[in-house]
Amino acid sequence: MQSKNKIKYIRSLGMKKFRDESGCFLAEGNKLVKDILPFFECELLVAKPSWIAQQGDIRAGELIAAEGDDIKKASMMKTPQDVVAVFKQPNYLLDKDELKQNLSLVLDGIQDPGNMGTIIRLADWFGIKNVICSPDTADIFNPKTVQATMGAIARVKVFYARLPELLNDFIDFPVYGTLLEGGNIYEETLTANGLIVLGNESKGISRSVAKYISRKLYIPNYPPGIKTSESLNVAVAAAITCSEFRRRLN
Amino acid sequence: MQSKNKIKYIRSLGMKKFRDESGCFLAEGNKLVKDILPFFECELLVAKPSWIAQQGDIRAGELIAAEGDDIKKASMMKTPQDVVAVFKQPNYLLDKDELKQNLSLVLDGIQDPGNMGTIIRLADWFGIKNVICSPDTADIFNPKTVQATMGAIARVKVFYARLPELLNDFIDFPVYGTLLEGGNIYEETLTANGLIVLGNESKGISRSVAKYISRKLYIPNYPPGIKTSESLNVAVAAAITCSEFRRRLN
Repeated sequence: MQSKNKIKYIRSLGMKKFRDESGCFLAEGNKLVKDILPFFECELLVAKPSWIAQQGDIRAGELIAAEGDDIKKASMMKTPQDVVAVFKQPNYLLDKDELKQNLSLVLDGIQDPGNMGTIIRLADWFGIKNVICSPDTADIFNPKTVQATMGAIARVKVFYARLPELLNDFIDFPVYGTLLEGGNIYEETLTANGLIVLGNESKGISRSVAKYISRKLYIPNYPPGIKTSESLNVAVAAAITCSEFRRRLN
Repeated sequence: MQSKNKIKYIRSLGMKKFRDESGCFLAEGNKLVKDILPFFECELLVAKPSWIAQQGDIRAGELIAAEGDDIKKASMMKTPQDVVAVFKQPNYLLDKDELKQNLSLVLDGIQDPGNMGTIIRLADWFGIKNVICSPDTADIFNPKTVQATMGAIARVKVFYARLPELLNDFIDFPVYGTLLEGGNIYEETLTANGLIVLGNESKGISRSVAKYISRKLYIPNYPPGIKTSESLNVAVAAAITCSEFRRRLN
């Protein structure tokens, strides 16, 4: 590969500042890039000739055949694969009417990119199309998050918004949250449409958001009343909650 | 703190080789160390005087009051807290009769220490006391795993064993696994006692283990038949599976 500047640019997308400036994000790995190529506009794709040959027509602003060493230099991964690609960030419009006709997730300060990606992946599994995040939630375009979504980033729309203002428009709509004082999730009435709020890994749901939660849920431990861990990992709690909502519709 | 050798020893426990040699493991963080102190034999505890003063009687082979700088040197964490402790690895005996009277997890090559710790934490939540791991599963005493268990390591017994040999003794016992060709988990009969097998993050359940699975389960995506992510994160699949088993007993 000729240009050191290209490598520098790709690597710069590891930082939010440069992602914001360029409006782009980075995705890596043979399967991930292949999976999301049809869904996002690809600005730059750097891959081994063998990977390129395996694909059909690749639509990319710039396509560079490179050797492993160059890909390694551009990569954020411990074990780089055969392709690194720069995509334009999508520009979705938040449609409150759409939210009111579906089940959606609200992330209130999720910090870990791995947790965030895992949650997007499970949202996709359970047909949840919209995820709204507080401004202090991990960046969906952080390379680690993109990686952890395993391609679900192409099917789930992620928005950032100030949550109290947003939730103020959902006063008469079911807003769920898992809280220690909530009702048994296996027994409570769960609606087909609603918002499910998930809180920060250590602090939980913030006070300014908690007051909008109209339906408090609790995942009971087993056997009841025995001392166990004080909480579940947020992606685990999200998984159990989404599964229980979808089981009811099964 | 006087001794550089102490710091060196503590840090060496980041590597499996030295954990095996010493039969010890490392735990860090104000809450984690406090939570597990009553359950494991503490060989060495290094903490700020303020943390020590907040505890009652601390039972440790060696107790060292140290300043933040020394704790930082000994720590594996990005943001070290006030205490680092070395514990003896427990020596549990695998009791097959106990397994036959309970619900237990079997981990077949889980690689990520974070996933492993998250699974131990959720096992604890759902009252699962025994987790049996293939030899190539992440080490429960890896500091990252210990951290991710959030203290559940004190309540869940983790064993390493060759799985085919083990499962050979459970031929007439329900052995569950989540597989793409399995039956709908929400509809299948689930027993109160059994083994739930969880597979490697990318390769799933290995062939030599899969043949012992007598009850195949599938977590249906939603809506049925729509193209979504091809799989769920293993800790997420574990969470949904354990939750569904426990819901039936609720």
